[in-house]
Amino acid sequence: MKTFECVEGGVTAAHGFQACGVEAGIKYAGRKDMALLVADAPAAVAAVYTTNKVAAAPVQIDRERTRAGQAQAVIVNSGCANACTGETGLKNAREMARVTAAALGIAEELVLVCSTGVIGVNLPMDRIAAGAKKAAGALSRSGGHDAACAIMTTDTVDKQVAVELEIDGKTVFIGGMCKGSGMIEPNMATMLGFLTTDVAVHPKALDQALREAVEVSFNRVVVDGDMSTNDTVILMASGVAGNQMLTPYHPQWQYFVDALTVVCLELGKKMVLDGEGATKFVTVRVKGARTAEEAQAAARAVSKSPLVKTSWFGLDPNWGRVIAAVGYSGAEVDDQKARISYGDICAYDRGRVADKALLKAMQDVMRHRAFDVTVELGLGDGEDTVYTCDFSYDYVKINAEYTT
Amino acid sequence: MKTFECVEGGVTAAHGFQACGVEAGIKYAGRKDMALLVADAPAAVAAVYTTNKVAAAPVQIDRERTRAGQAQAVIVNSGCANACTGETGLKNAREMARVTAAALGIAEELVLVCSTGVIGVNLPMDRIAAGAKKAAGALSRSGGHDAACAIMTTDTVDKQVAVELEIDGKTVFIGGMCKGSGMIEPNMATMLGFLTTDVAVHPKALDQALREAVEVSFNRVVVDGDMSTNDTVILMASGVAGNQMLTPYHPQWQYFVDALTVVCLELGKKMVLDGEGATKFVTVRVKGARTAEEAQAAARAVSKSPLVKTSWFGLDPNWGRVIAAVGYSGAEVDDQKARISYGDICAYDRGRVADKALLKAMQDVMRHRAFDVTVELGLGDGEDTVYTCDFSYDYVKINAEYTT
Repeated sequence: MKTFECVEGGVTAAHGFQACGVEAGIKYAGRKDMALLVADAPAAVAAVYTTNKVAAAPVQIDRERTRAGQAQAVIVNSGCANACTGETGLKNAREMARVTAAALGIAEELVLVCSTGVIGVNLPMDRIAAGAKKAAGALSRSGGHDAACAIMTTDTVDKQVAVELEIDGKTVFIGGMCKGSGMIEPNMATMLGFLTTDVAVHPKALDQALREAVEVSFNRVVVDGDMSTNDTVILMASGVAGNQMLTPYHPQWQYFVDALTVVCLELGKKMVLDGEGATKFVTVRVKGARTAEEAQAAARAVSKSPLVKTSWFGLDPNWGRVIAAVGYSGAEVDDQKARISYGDICAYDRGRVADKALLKAMQDVMRHRAFDVTVELGLGDGEDTVYTCDFSYDYVKINAEYTT
Repeated sequence: MKTFECVEGGVTAAHGFQACGVEAGIKYAGRKDMALLVADAPAAVAAVYTTNKVAAAPVQIDRERTRAGQAQAVIVNSGCANACTGETGLKNAREMARVTAAALGIAEELVLVCSTGVIGVNLPMDRIAAGAKKAAGALSRSGGHDAACAIMTTDTVDKQVAVELEIDGKTVFIGGMCKGSGMIEPNMATMLGFLTTDVAVHPKALDQALREAVEVSFNRVVVDGDMSTNDTVILMASGVAGNQMLTPYHPQWQYFVDALTVVCLELGKKMVLDGEGATKFVTVRVKGARTAEEAQAAARAVSKSPLVKTSWFGLDPNWGRVIAAVGYSGAEVDDQKARISYGDICAYDRGRVADKALLKAMQDVMRHRAFDVTVELGLGDGEDTVYTCDFSYDYVKINAEYTT
């Protein structure tokens, strides 16, 4: 995959967008808790949502609204997920969009809503309404950073990426921000991602590009395997860059998809690096599986196994736990054809266990903040990669010590 | 389900069996590490094995041998799993059976082998052979306890159950022992279960009874969701009780299956109670699912979620994590029809969150060593129950601090 030039600005790197983050008093004083992202004019939009059967109210609203392929604003609050809130929740989510639309002077249907935070609690609508108005007055062409901070929950750092590329001889930008560090808000594990670009692109093509990019980026990131009721990724394209309308028939289509994928992947990696209690960033590569699907199943099983994750935390190159996880993943595996490596050092090679003398070298690999674990199955051409982290004492601490 | 009278004796409670546990020097000095269980004559046998694609050598041997429905002895070692050992592993497993058969003076094909311990290491055949001979000379009618101790790895207590029942007016026994506390040996997560009975029972019926019993007992126990390469449950029936041959057409068939199920379930519960780092024994009940399959999927997802398990450790009645887990389990769920309770106290009732005043009462429920979490989906008649435990600091400690 090509490399792209990184630039500052996050969601406001692309032309045609303004953003901000404001204090609405939903969380504690001095904490930005509402973000607003607005396009200068109605933009092409694509989105992907959680597959969890319990979908929060804002997800239900946005699913409906993004179907039309057009949107102009996204209003986001942290501190309250507006999930498991029934009819009241839907009414509140619509009202949150309505007050934002009124403050911006745009059509209500062009406003999307996102919430992240405690589940089962209704939105504090007075503060939401006041916050939305405040946000509408605080928009700026350099507001990407404030917006990225306002959507954080248990994240310890804001997460932004933007790249610059050239399409049809025009300089264009793709930028984004996200929040998520495993299960984020103590009550709920939400990943929110917001992406912008100034390329002109057909809405159907935008949807295809986003799905392709998300599949190999956000969908390849595992912190704990739990999936939230609020997970959402929204991509808006302002179209002001002046390029020829992008579709899969445009000669630079793949170049655009690659750049979008890089932005999504870098955002996803930032979430893993900020994973709750994570001390290691581990790239799990599975090669030589019978099929790509089996490779993915194997990589996911290894990445989700509590046994494997605790061994990484303990600097233990415990390949036995790795092969056992592959064995129950559904992927075909023959232990007499499989190889497992930590970095470049082979721990298990088709029935032979690495010499004890190599143990220290493997542990040295694992002492790095980031390392690779590679599983070669020797059965075919299927391969896949998943990005994940370890399970530490702090993971238990963060998730056990919260009291509702 | 009926209750049954518990008796002492474990695998030697039933007539027609002897057992022992001996020190073979596979682990450290002073530690019993080989067990032998022998029927006075060839017995009917049934067994269930791991579905992990990576099956250890002894599992491959036993799968073949138990197909005939007859066996007389089981030789077990702890300290070495004989997994991922290829042709040498198969040869060694066969040799372990052969020396045992020779020492007992019985046919080689009637001996089953089980191993648990470190993966990727060959059996120390000199010590195995000497141990098998020593075991053959140490058999006793009251050796169940020693055998139960010899199969332990990271288990902190031996696990035995036996019940007495009456069939055709004859007093008969079903007894068993097992090992397993999550992932047991640092390198491998093995559950081994050995059951004996003195009823006369057709081998095909025995197989059916074992499968029925295991499905609602060992298969409903979740510690960490990892599945080992060596998991095995073997049931031998000596037939000396003098009852009419049991088949599903015998009037007391269900009574026998119920008793066998109770033995398996009590053994399974002992494993959860001894789960690595476990501080809580949690019974997850799902009711009102569309189907029994969906209820099972939901109960498993709740029981395996690291988020849910850490909340139990932290005494946090975090129903949001529970409903989110149900939501990604594949089971249908409508958050406006669902209820979630801790013990008898409802935390979430069809869109309404319990009053804050009930929080302390819910935490009091969770302060007990054992409590129930009940999810009522309100969609149908499907129900299921899974027995599980929490994730604590000690889980991470036990599984991280081992060094290969």
